[in-house]
Amino acid sequence: MSSNRDIDALIEMMAKLPGLGPRSARRAVLHMIRKRGLLLTPLAELMQTVAASARECLNCGNIGTGDICDICASEARANGLLCVVEDVADLWAMERSGVFKGRYHVLGGTLSALASVGPEDLRIPRLLDRVKTEGITEVILALNATVDGQTTAHYIADQLEGTVALSSLAQGVPIGGELDYLDDGTITAALNARKRF
Amino acid sequence: MSSNRDIDALIEMMAKLPGLGPRSARRAVLHMIRKRGLLLTPLAELMQTVAASARECLNCGNIGTGDICDICASEARANGLLCVVEDVADLWAMERSGVFKGRYHVLGGTLSALASVGPEDLRIPRLLDRVKTEGITEVILALNATVDGQTTAHYIADQLEGTVALSSLAQGVPIGGELDYLDDGTITAALNARKRF
Ligand SMILES: [Zn+2]
Ligand SMILES: [Zn+2]
Repeated sequence: MSSNRDIDALIEMMAKLPGLGPRSARRAVLHMIRKRGLLLTPLAELMQTVAASARECLNCGNIGTGDICDICASEARANGLLCVVEDVADLWAMERSGVFKGRYHVLGGTLSALASVGPEDLRIPRLLDRVKTEGITEVILALNATVDGQTTAHYIADQLEGTVALSSLAQGVPIGGELDYLDDGTITAALNARKRF
Repeated sequence: MSSNRDIDALIEMMAKLPGLGPRSARRAVLHMIRKRGLLLTPLAELMQTVAASARECLNCGNIGTGDICDICASEARANGLLCVVEDVADLWAMERSGVFKGRYHVLGGTLSALASVGPEDLRIPRLLDRVKTEGITEVILALNATVDGQTTAHYIADQLEGTVALSSLAQGVPIGGELDYLDDGTITAALNARKRF
């Protein structure tokens, strides 16, 4: 393609990233080569750093560096609120809105009869444990407004009923919508108007 | 955003690549972290390799490794045909069609009165030199079908008139279209049906 083996390999690997295809991978690689000092070299170094240090937080499932992520490690975030999300991308979306000051729990998916995903396949046992041990006063179920997301929310609500206040994101989450696609304002509105579960 | 400084820096830099925005950069970074052994680490290593070795061929302007690119270094490509393109992305597009077996000359742009780009700002002097010294029998002007592309083709044709056969890509290049956007079949057809300039 480019007449060079390494450049071709780089294009091929870039094309595997979500959102990039072969053509955009070619343009991205050409752009990076032209800006190698500003872009290609620093990007390679950052990727090395992240590859060496990034890992799942043992407590919440967020991706950070070290065994415990910065949010779990921060005493300031221990305000009794625990926000349950399906995926790390959803946690990042919540953080961008900047309005939530508590901690998170990343399930790593949703319950699914079809795909045989049960509570033990997600971080649900760990969630129940955290609610008991971390002085949680309210669990916010910020799951996607999909069938599986809502099934999972109801399952968790059943498990926690009577032990803690439960709420879910309310206003603004569109039917069938996914958190990671929402703008920050919508997330803020949904969080502020959260309703009792 | 992600609650981690290095991951945020990586997302921010990925978002600068053409074709990626903040959201697709976030998804790409999350995907890479999850596949760090298969994707993030090899990608970082390939980027380091390419950053250290990629450079412009002193002869033709292609991007390769070393002072002279593989195409210029290959005796098999010295068949008397020289294909003139605006940009390295156009050379890559020609190579993907697999039908051209000669060599290339990358101008690095087009003449433009508006942007004050003259022949000395492109690789035109080097082109005239190569035609004399590399035993070129035919120059194929594979410039984009834009006003500046065609102005540049006419300028080069005037300079070379009477010294070598001249042709241009014919059938298939749409008006106002750019080579790098065409499919391989169209490029093949345009090359096979090339007409005398
Ligand atoms: Zn954590
Ligand atoms: Zn070359």
